[in-house]
Amino acid sequence: MIETDILIIGAGPTGLFAVFEAGLLKLKCHIIDALPQIGGQLTELYPKKPIFDIPGFPEVLAGDLIKNHMEQIKQFQPGFTLGERAETIETLEDGTFVVTTDKGTQHHAHAIAIAGGLGSFEPRKPVIEDIEFYEDKGVNYFIKDPELYRGKKVVIAGGGDSALDWSIFLSDVASEVTLIHRRNEFRGALDSVEKAQELKHQGKIKLITPAEVVGLQGAEKLEAIDIEENGAHRRIETDYLIPLFGLTPKLGPIANWGLEIEKNAIKVNNALDYQTNIPGIYAIGDVNTYPGKLKLILCGYHEATLMCQSVYQRMNPGKKYVLKYTTVSGVDGFDGSRKEAEKAVVKSID
Amino acid sequence: MIETDILIIGAGPTGLFAVFEAGLLKLKCHIIDALPQIGGQLTELYPKKPIFDIPGFPEVLAGDLIKNHMEQIKQFQPGFTLGERAETIETLEDGTFVVTTDKGTQHHAHAIAIAGGLGSFEPRKPVIEDIEFYEDKGVNYFIKDPELYRGKKVVIAGGGDSALDWSIFLSDVASEVTLIHRRNEFRGALDSVEKAQELKHQGKIKLITPAEVVGLQGAEKLEAIDIEENGAHRRIETDYLIPLFGLTPKLGPIANWGLEIEKNAIKVNNALDYQTNIPGIYAIGDVNTYPGKLKLILCGYHEATLMCQSVYQRMNPGKKYVLKYTTVSGVDGFDGSRKEAEKAVVKSID
Repeated sequence: MIETDILIIGAGPTGLFAVFEAGLLKLKCHIIDALPQIGGQLTELYPKKPIFDIPGFPEVLAGDLIKNHMEQIKQFQPGFTLGERAETIETLEDGTFVVTTDKGTQHHAHAIAIAGGLGSFEPRKPVIEDIEFYEDKGVNYFIKDPELYRGKKVVIAGGGDSALDWSIFLSDVASEVTLIHRRNEFRGALDSVEKAQELKHQGKIKLITPAEVVGLQGAEKLEAIDIEENGAHRRIETDYLIPLFGLTPKLGPIANWGLEIEKNAIKVNNALDYQTNIPGIYAIGDVNTYPGKLKLILCGYHEATLMCQSVYQRMNPGKKYVLKYTTVSGVDGFDGSRKEAEKAVVKSID
Repeated sequence: MIETDILIIGAGPTGLFAVFEAGLLKLKCHIIDALPQIGGQLTELYPKKPIFDIPGFPEVLAGDLIKNHMEQIKQFQPGFTLGERAETIETLEDGTFVVTTDKGTQHHAHAIAIAGGLGSFEPRKPVIEDIEFYEDKGVNYFIKDPELYRGKKVVIAGGGDSALDWSIFLSDVASEVTLIHRRNEFRGALDSVEKAQELKHQGKIKLITPAEVVGLQGAEKLEAIDIEENGAHRRIETDYLIPLFGLTPKLGPIANWGLEIEKNAIKVNNALDYQTNIPGIYAIGDVNTYPGKLKLILCGYHEATLMCQSVYQRMNPGKKYVLKYTTVSGVDGFDGSRKEAEKAVVKSID
């Protein structure tokens, strides 16, 4: 059982910044995310794209913003459960919670902060007979560890940035990379398209277009796929099929936790602390809704901060909280580190 | 008469960021500040000190944060009325406002956003007979333009960073710089104290401690000051006396605008748009109060953003507002500039 003060669901910018504000209050955080890496949409959907509306950054790449957040919170040593989806919640008699993931990992916390963004990202699955049978037996919708594919035959299906970028990356790892797309045209960053073209000419990526995967073969696990190309069918031997047709955000199992939901978002008390209808469960960032809600990262930062204050009061009833400014009081990490402004000296001049 | 959409009172980080969010909605802003420069507390009180709790910045110097904000908003071309204090407000029949400063400058706006921080900074004035008579006739509490002192005799009174740093700076500009402090010890950054000591040894700064200014002389304007040093009195000829005894924030004339005030802060509707009890007047950042209020810069950013949305609705009643993400739609400046993410290409690979 993982023990923490605040269990944060969602490792996007709002969830990550919550770790910092919690840390200032000496509260420890653990983060669950369904994606295999931190950053939420920012790393999954647009790591190399600039954001212009983060306060104080005239321009920042989404991936760099996430790196900055990790640097800002590292001294508060958050824990992570990545690649697992928060599935069920149980409220214990003392008002604390146990959250269990789809892989069975259990987390015990004093408060829950749902920072789930648009929801957990579910892969768009192609309609191919028996595909569920082959999931995790050769068919993967995410690439968690590229080393899994070393020396193996891999087929990637899709025509966007993910399909292009992973084909390029795996061309150095897998024994064979085949990219199948149902159109001749790919849609992606110019340099990705050009790099894929170059690797095709070097024979490092096989390209089959326009074509579609129409069948899967193998008794125990995937051994081959059937494709349709220009009306004709043929079979290709492969160890893996990685369909990369994008992600659909879904609120997922959280929708069954008894929270008030409105238009796929969780209703919260924006007049105080972004708490949901269940005391001790908060919703912050894009996942929540209230009158005048804007789905902006900077709003998530504010919501995360007020949530942490509320959790502090919940865990320390009656204790008076005194706001300290980081410039004045410095920041003490859980790892013993300390950041502080240079102190003024008192000195006579002679 | 200066015309604008949103008149912002206070040029700190909250007021500056409001210009950006307003700009995304095609609303123009003009900013009034009692201080002679932008940045509020951050540039006036601690420009060289690090802040650790701005989201996405593990550490940023207060002065640099302000520079970043100016860079972020420059394409929205805000206007500035600096070194003047917002004094009176008049509501016109059409619901718009006219705000007049202590220097008589008039501003006409559709909405007012008070982003006044802790209030307008008023200098702590030393108790010396007739000092009001000499204000702006030799006695200055702020240094707006150092060139005013070129070739002149200047006495600075005080023992903190401002007194040290301006003595150092003016030692290259004025014909004579005298620093008077009632204690032998100065309190400031180590390098400032050491630099002042060095300049004293070079004869570029005269130091008189422990001593106090006890009288002012001159028929039309300041010609000399009387000081008390070790119980003895003597007279020093000077063109200027600059008392730098710190600043006290005061809500000031805004307190008489009919706004609901609680503990020196302005009450706002935090459940919607940070509007005050007077429709069309908003209060954002440290100057406002509501249940659970935290005086943090990051909260001001959120409040500024929701304020801009509310002003947009006020100026465009019934018009449906569609939130656009800067990463997707780019940012169009009022100066014709455009910032945008690189577009994806659609291209076949042959």
